[in-house]
Amino acid sequence: MTIEAIDVRPPGPDEVVVAVGAAPINPSDLRILLAGADPERAVRDGDSVRIALGRGAAAAAATRVGRPMTAGNEGAGVVVATGDSEAARALAGRTVAVFAGGGMYGTHVTVHVAACLPLPDGTDPRVGASAFVNPLTALGMVDTMRLEGHTAIVHTAAASNLGQMLNRLCIAEGVPLVAIVRRPEHAALLRGQGAAHVVDSSSPAFADDLIAAIRATGATIGFDAIGGGTLVSTILSCMEAALATGEFTTYGSSTHKQVYIYGGLDRSPTVLDRSYGLAWSVGGWLLTPFLGRVGPARAAELQARVAAELTTTFASDYGDVIGLDAVLDVEQLRRIARMSTGAKSLVAPTS
Amino acid sequence: MTIEAIDVRPPGPDEVVVAVGAAPINPSDLRILLAGADPERAVRDGDSVRIALGRGAAAAAATRVGRPMTAGNEGAGVVVATGDSEAARALAGRTVAVFAGGGMYGTHVTVHVAACLPLPDGTDPRVGASAFVNPLTALGMVDTMRLEGHTAIVHTAAASNLGQMLNRLCIAEGVPLVAIVRRPEHAALLRGQGAAHVVDSSSPAFADDLIAAIRATGATIGFDAIGGGTLVSTILSCMEAALATGEFTTYGSSTHKQVYIYGGLDRSPTVLDRSYGLAWSVGGWLLTPFLGRVGPARAAELQARVAAELTTTFASDYGDVIGLDAVLDVEQLRRIARMSTGAKSLVAPTS
Repeated sequence: MTIEAIDVRPPGPDEVVVAVGAAPINPSDLRILLAGADPERAVRDGDSVRIALGRGAAAAAATRVGRPMTAGNEGAGVVVATGDSEAARALAGRTVAVFAGGGMYGTHVTVHVAACLPLPDGTDPRVGASAFVNPLTALGMVDTMRLEGHTAIVHTAAASNLGQMLNRLCIAEGVPLVAIVRRPEHAALLRGQGAAHVVDSSSPAFADDLIAAIRATGATIGFDAIGGGTLVSTILSCMEAALATGEFTTYGSSTHKQVYIYGGLDRSPTVLDRSYGLAWSVGGWLLTPFLGRVGPARAAELQARVAAELTTTFASDYGDVIGLDAVLDVEQLRRIARMSTGAKSLVAPTS
Repeated sequence: MTIEAIDVRPPGPDEVVVAVGAAPINPSDLRILLAGADPERAVRDGDSVRIALGRGAAAAAATRVGRPMTAGNEGAGVVVATGDSEAARALAGRTVAVFAGGGMYGTHVTVHVAACLPLPDGTDPRVGASAFVNPLTALGMVDTMRLEGHTAIVHTAAASNLGQMLNRLCIAEGVPLVAIVRRPEHAALLRGQGAAHVVDSSSPAFADDLIAAIRATGATIGFDAIGGGTLVSTILSCMEAALATGEFTTYGSSTHKQVYIYGGLDRSPTVLDRSYGLAWSVGGWLLTPFLGRVGPARAAELQARVAAELTTTFASDYGDVIGLDAVLDVEQLRRIARMSTGAKSLVAPTS
């Protein structure tokens, strides 16, 4: 990783130049920054940080070798130059949230107007910095639940920024939510935010508690941020147990049970014991294909809702605010990587 | 397990009594007969066979305790008595294939006319005995492939009766099939039946061969009879490798990769290494929900095709023909259980 001075690309007709005010560090950004490398192995080397990749990570990153990538998927800032089109000129001077898919960890970025969500004038870029990934993911989970005929959700790593957002959204929408956390203090945090069904996977009563919460809510779909280990399988078997009627069935309940894996906090394999009949599915879930699935009109509706509720339902909480050069500080980098599962860091390029 | 003499239930208006001529032993029948018990632990006890269940099997069978079940899901025979309805009387004296969902391992069975598929007069019941489970499963795989937008199939344990059927069906339908087998002699058997893409998982070149076969066919859906271990994950990673363009993508190929698990020859956990991005899904597949999904009109079309092609596309090959009392012979029972993955046994109640 290096920080380089590059020329700001002049905007095309439908593009604008944004002076970046703030950009969050999401797990998807860490994938770009670290390429699966272990930050504990990071070493400072002049103006760069270098990390040797493990074998698996090296294989996965083979097609990246020799291709510099700019990091930072989303953020917010002020439009300081525009292209000639009406849509571009309308954004002049506006504070916008931006989904750039890279390049937001910089002082300026040139993006298409379609990547910008105008925010009320005077909005602090730090408030608008996380207007895409987490809010649209939370909204996407609720939409996916409805599209696939479920009525309640199980969520893991549920005390994350995204998890707190999903909790507020589910309360607002009247969608029962089973929140799985890994620590008692995370359970307390979510309960303090009104969560009715919080289950702590570190408790010896975890499986019984999860069955009871699933029975109370009727949840048959889950979204898992962790990926590795047996948690996905445990969720499915607890769903199956909650559905059991006491009648014997050769192939288990006929009610379809779904868990989507949308993150990889645990990179170890997913282990499924298949003790839940044959009416189940486990798969990957990603925001971009979801937006493709619902189409541009629904995506625009969801974005408008985010803009309207940015300081309420979709508010983010940051652990700290760092400058661009923090990623070149090996100790800071390790801390950022460890924090990414809970309150995340905000990069403020000019701080 | 016991064999008991029970009265034949008189047919209701829409029912018929079938004198059973032959009934196959499918893996789904072994689930009923053995309840997940290890046949190596079977002991003869007077007129019964008893097998102690392992802990996992005992938990899964908890709701079966004290509930006798009659085994034998399908078979064929001659209608020897009918109810009063026109539909029932039309079957008098006919040779029919029957999907009873239990009770076919007996001399007679009383079933609804809708469970009967009339066969040409003079058909040997041994020829019509497997007219439902395997043929409709093979047809269901091809229909599922089309319904979900795929154009070629990967199949495991592909030298089974079902696998040979699927191979003939795919040749007839022009659907490219990647057949994964576990032994060189199984590969030779399928190649001898015209299979173009046979891959042997016991070969050191397995992964490379599988990638090449998937690339040649474009297969993005798989049906797996094994369930346990890493094979499902290997299929997904080989699909992903076959789709790779050389361009780096953060979340892998955007092409959806699907593997359905429809059997459990290996009862150990399914281990997914998730090295194939997020556009993937693994789930259970079962004939009954598939038939519900396509509806009764399509199900009737598929059944008519089976009846017309029972001696060609959907012909079955049996390892041996046994009498009803074979299941009470501990040595025979063990042999039957071991054979169920390849050529299966046929129960001829009166032999």
